[in-house]
Amino acid sequence: MKLIFAERMKYVKKSFIREILKITQNPEVISFAGGLPNPSSFPLEEIETATQKILEKDGRSILQYGTTEGYLPLRTYIAERYDKRFGLKINPEEILITNGSQQALDLLSKALINEGDDVLIERPAYLGAIQSLSFYQPNLLSVTLNDDGVDLESLAKLLETHQPKFFYSVPTFQNPSGLTYSLENRKELAKLLTQHNVLLVEDDPYSELRFLGEEIPPIKCIMGDYGILLGSFSKIVSPGMRLGWVVAAPEIMDKLIIAKQAADLHTNNFSQRVVYQYLIDNDLDAHIEKIKVMYKARCTFMSEMIKQYFPPEVKVTQPEGGMFMWATLPDGISSMKLMELAAMEKVAFVPGDPFYVNEINVPTLRLNYTNSDNVLIEEGIKRLGTVIKTLMNA
Amino acid sequence: MKLIFAERMKYVKKSFIREILKITQNPEVISFAGGLPNPSSFPLEEIETATQKILEKDGRSILQYGTTEGYLPLRTYIAERYDKRFGLKINPEEILITNGSQQALDLLSKALINEGDDVLIERPAYLGAIQSLSFYQPNLLSVTLNDDGVDLESLAKLLETHQPKFFYSVPTFQNPSGLTYSLENRKELAKLLTQHNVLLVEDDPYSELRFLGEEIPPIKCIMGDYGILLGSFSKIVSPGMRLGWVVAAPEIMDKLIIAKQAADLHTNNFSQRVVYQYLIDNDLDAHIEKIKVMYKARCTFMSEMIKQYFPPEVKVTQPEGGMFMWATLPDGISSMKLMELAAMEKVAFVPGDPFYVNEINVPTLRLNYTNSDNVLIEEGIKRLGTVIKTLMNA
Repeated sequence: MKLIFAERMKYVKKSFIREILKITQNPEVISFAGGLPNPSSFPLEEIETATQKILEKDGRSILQYGTTEGYLPLRTYIAERYDKRFGLKINPEEILITNGSQQALDLLSKALINEGDDVLIERPAYLGAIQSLSFYQPNLLSVTLNDDGVDLESLAKLLETHQPKFFYSVPTFQNPSGLTYSLENRKELAKLLTQHNVLLVEDDPYSELRFLGEEIPPIKCIMGDYGILLGSFSKIVSPGMRLGWVVAAPEIMDKLIIAKQAADLHTNNFSQRVVYQYLIDNDLDAHIEKIKVMYKARCTFMSEMIKQYFPPEVKVTQPEGGMFMWATLPDGISSMKLMELAAMEKVAFVPGDPFYVNEINVPTLRLNYTNSDNVLIEEGIKRLGTVIKTLMNA
Repeated sequence: MKLIFAERMKYVKKSFIREILKITQNPEVISFAGGLPNPSSFPLEEIETATQKILEKDGRSILQYGTTEGYLPLRTYIAERYDKRFGLKINPEEILITNGSQQALDLLSKALINEGDDVLIERPAYLGAIQSLSFYQPNLLSVTLNDDGVDLESLAKLLETHQPKFFYSVPTFQNPSGLTYSLENRKELAKLLTQHNVLLVEDDPYSELRFLGEEIPPIKCIMGDYGILLGSFSKIVSPGMRLGWVVAAPEIMDKLIIAKQAADLHTNNFSQRVVYQYLIDNDLDAHIEKIKVMYKARCTFMSEMIKQYFPPEVKVTQPEGGMFMWATLPDGISSMKLMELAAMEKVAFVPGDPFYVNEINVPTLRLNYTNSDNVLIEEGIKRLGTVIKTLMNA
């Protein structure tokens, strides 16, 4: 059998996360690698109650085919929550329910990207986005992130000579860096993109998880139809349900619906109905508050342990929410090399390389603090500190 | 705002089914248009029991992220069922769980099709496949279907001058025609495709629903690694769960897994676990038997009503299973025109046009018999017969 795959497959790497899985599957390994919510945060009993209720009330319609756009009351709930949180007015018709926000990115890429099109991403960028975009063979242009958001000067320079289809951005508690764009940065960014007729694809899975500082509204609030907003129930209810959504202007939504229908007809009805029932019968804000208290404690504790066990030359971000810290090793030290050594000491993280396009042996790495308890955090950070020191002295 | 969509969007039409929905949303309309299972066939109570059991037993792991490949015990169950039904040996590693088999087709197209590649489809073909394939801009080549399967002579001729990537086929109770390839036809087809190094993508959502005649094994049984087999729980358990799968050789599976991860990380965990629990706690064969008794009765009754109310010039297939009948009007009579007139009489079906590439005003049409009771079947067929006669006399 002689197989010839599509050209696009050459541009897509196997996810690095899958490679790391090989290390973390060993139960003795302490892992800060994944991006998993803490399972104790899942509203298990409430989901049980909601499931029973909805199956009894409307079982046969839940098990039947649904509409491509998704369950209208759920879309209405999402629209109302945007209004409540930010005064952002969204018509439920502008919301499409997807299998997690990952699928929304795939559908958007399908609808918008031609081979060779310029597409802006952050530097560093969410690796799942790099993978997903790469299937459509765009020319990925990286925009450096500063502590307060996008480096506007270099973006402005890029826009003088390029016409990107869109900018894929995670402005709040960015994955992997944990950084958040300031309000000022958001305003300037919105102005710049709008002037140059560039859409913003704003991925926002983490903003509900703010445990410090002031909430900053999504950039969509100031970009109108230029803003495409992705959201998800994965980090606030359950990722196993695979429920995300995309908010887009009607003209774009038309194309997304066609793409969604060809991709898988519609999103799982069962999950949509169960989660909707959960949402209307419970206080989501109170639930999120509990998650935030938990994550704040883990984050604070990990910061303390890093102070105690890491050499002072390692710079680590101080997140105000979300799930990740971002560490920078002294110049010339490769986090890939560190990963290899750390694996031998049975501790794992994600090295920076897969978050960049065409850069290798970078000194940065991502640490997740949501899915380990304090005992594991102390032991893991201690082991990692030792390995870093060994590597620095080598 | 100036939007430029991807080129591929020009090749994809809005699904015709969505257009028909506008007619069928009127509750007074009798619809034979959809491809919906009868909701009374859903094992509602058993699903309730399974859901409660699995949430209590393993709730937090169900709500967490899962693996891209899908839940291993479910994949093992599927493999064992192929062995039991056909003696077909499949390694669970060769099975990927997808959001219905529709997604499997999208992932396969992504992995295999370059713009301009030849791809074989049936004539007529499943319209969701035409839509899904079109996103990858192949050159679609239609192979005529005869009563016993593919027209092998014209296929052989095509293969002299073309090198298609694959043949997308629904060999058992085909959608839309309801036709089934004979065993002899399958053998010849397998030989022809293998000789020419053409993969077969064999979509098999209906074969469990055989209520007449002898079971015929999937072509995969004789094609080995050249055969890619799609399956689904939509027609035998529940379509709202969006659970399908693809069986493919390891080399192809590698690419599908990368594509699946970029598309949506993994299929809904909740549905996978609930359906698996349902499957191991219940007798699936007994459940399917009940569906078959119901569908056979509907099918037989619709045939009788057609004999009674349609003019004898209309030729209608006699399905041995599945969900559809296929009618051919006298030459020169357009089923699109018929649809317009039928809408005024409040009866709906799917006209043939969307099942063909580049053919319009065809005289064929699809009738679904699974989702209407006898009262509606009689009244709907009666109305349709009257409209056909009016059109024939016009």
